[in-house]
Amino acid sequence: MTDALRSFDIIRVRGSARSDATDRAATEEPLEIRLHRRPFAVIMRTPGADRELAAGFLLSERVIRSADDLGTIEYCADRRDGQERPAQNIVDVTLTDGARLERVFADRRQVTTTSSCGLCGRLTIESLATDVAPIASSLTIHVAMLAALPHRLRGSQAVFEETGGLHAAGLFTADGHLLDVAEDVGRHNALDKVVGRMLMRDALPLSEHVICVSGRTSYEIVQKAIVAGIPIVAAVSAPSSLAIDLARAFGVTLVGFVRGDTYNIYAHAHRIL
Amino acid sequence: MTDALRSFDIIRVRGSARSDATDRAATEEPLEIRLHRRPFAVIMRTPGADRELAAGFLLSERVIRSADDLGTIEYCADRRDGQERPAQNIVDVTLTDGARLERVFADRRQVTTTSSCGLCGRLTIESLATDVAPIASSLTIHVAMLAALPHRLRGSQAVFEETGGLHAAGLFTADGHLLDVAEDVGRHNALDKVVGRMLMRDALPLSEHVICVSGRTSYEIVQKAIVAGIPIVAAVSAPSSLAIDLARAFGVTLVGFVRGDTYNIYAHAHRIL
Repeated sequence: MTDALRSFDIIRVRGSARSDATDRAATEEPLEIRLHRRPFAVIMRTPGADRELAAGFLLSERVIRSADDLGTIEYCADRRDGQERPAQNIVDVTLTDGARLERVFADRRQVTTTSSCGLCGRLTIESLATDVAPIASSLTIHVAMLAALPHRLRGSQAVFEETGGLHAAGLFTADGHLLDVAEDVGRHNALDKVVGRMLMRDALPLSEHVICVSGRTSYEIVQKAIVAGIPIVAAVSAPSSLAIDLARAFGVTLVGFVRGDTYNIYAHAHRIL
Repeated sequence: MTDALRSFDIIRVRGSARSDATDRAATEEPLEIRLHRRPFAVIMRTPGADRELAAGFLLSERVIRSADDLGTIEYCADRRDGQERPAQNIVDVTLTDGARLERVFADRRQVTTTSSCGLCGRLTIESLATDVAPIASSLTIHVAMLAALPHRLRGSQAVFEETGGLHAAGLFTADGHLLDVAEDVGRHNALDKVVGRMLMRDALPLSEHVICVSGRTSYEIVQKAIVAGIPIVAAVSAPSSLAIDLARAFGVTLVGFVRGDTYNIYAHAHRIL
């Protein structure tokens, strides 16, 4: 069973002091939900209560209306490495009324999830690797520059100040100048707006820039930074386990808990002098 | 142009005092992204920089690789009410290489988004109305009971305390007893886990219960509460505009910014005595 927490070796920055430390991050892995063995949805989630998650999700999606509609919920078998074992990131759900199944798939609009992931954390990163190049940037920044970013980002967030309801993403130059900022109820959207604006200006890759996000760092935040070529991701809150794994695999400097002049470096600390 | 903020008449609770007030909430509305007029994805977002959002999203999804792949991004025309005007919640994107289009749709796994919404905020609520009944519950709770929920929720959140990386959802009885709690990197997932567990126990509808979530309240949080029959949703942070609209339309008591003995009631205050 995968735990809800994973330990990582990190570098802790306190003013000008820097020390090795261990931090624990919330586990994030994709769960694929199948209906009668047909792929139905992929959700990025923290492992644990996966069958309950699948049941609740299918209720919200109106695939089932009550417990009576629900047949079985089981982990699929995984035949990797020549061995058969339960796949912890795939559940197969059956409906008591199998005839309903075709209607479920036919009724759904064929819009697609934002999750471009594979079947588990490992495959997620591998599938990205076939498609996206690791960050190639020799950018370095000064340790104190990072500490100032959340304050500057907050200062530019007109709506958040008033409602507390919006996430922000700010794009900074290496010397801490705020180039662009976007706000949105969805933190992924805020980052997409900033990256999209730069794309429309033909300014990609953003290999000399730092992105600062107001909330937590998920897999998708790091994935979006990678495709935009951004070498440094700083966040006010915690990263997920998959965000750390992805940043390490793709050469992204990942910083979390930036508060005052303290923060944690989770990956590729060499860019911070 | 839709604004990033909308004003709502609310009831402000400060201890035992209660007063009418106006609050502003971050606007949340769905954006449908089409590729050459074919529906591709629906994203819940705050209006503004929609073309940039579409460009950034399509880059992350690997539909485009650079500005060279991007043709035009335009709002669609809306012919509602016999009048033609730009639809503010639909953008149509063309690729410079139209031949790429079939490959894009063919390559994508046919997994589906969590967004079951229609084409705009109004249609979102209307489409839900065809499928889901408004809350029918005569539950009332005492004004002081709500104030205690975030503290009780936090006390049960083992992982959050350590990592700061998880959202929580807690299901409470009318007298404030915590029945179930779930944690997840995704706040929608935490709620799905709690509701799914009750569904599997055949305990739905949860018409005598209160759900408390650790973060903000989006459209989807309220939608999930409605399908589970939960009459009262309390949150530590802000609701979005669409969460408020949906709660008002479907008879959900919606409470936000529950901090100490102060909070705001955004919809159906009659359940709080």
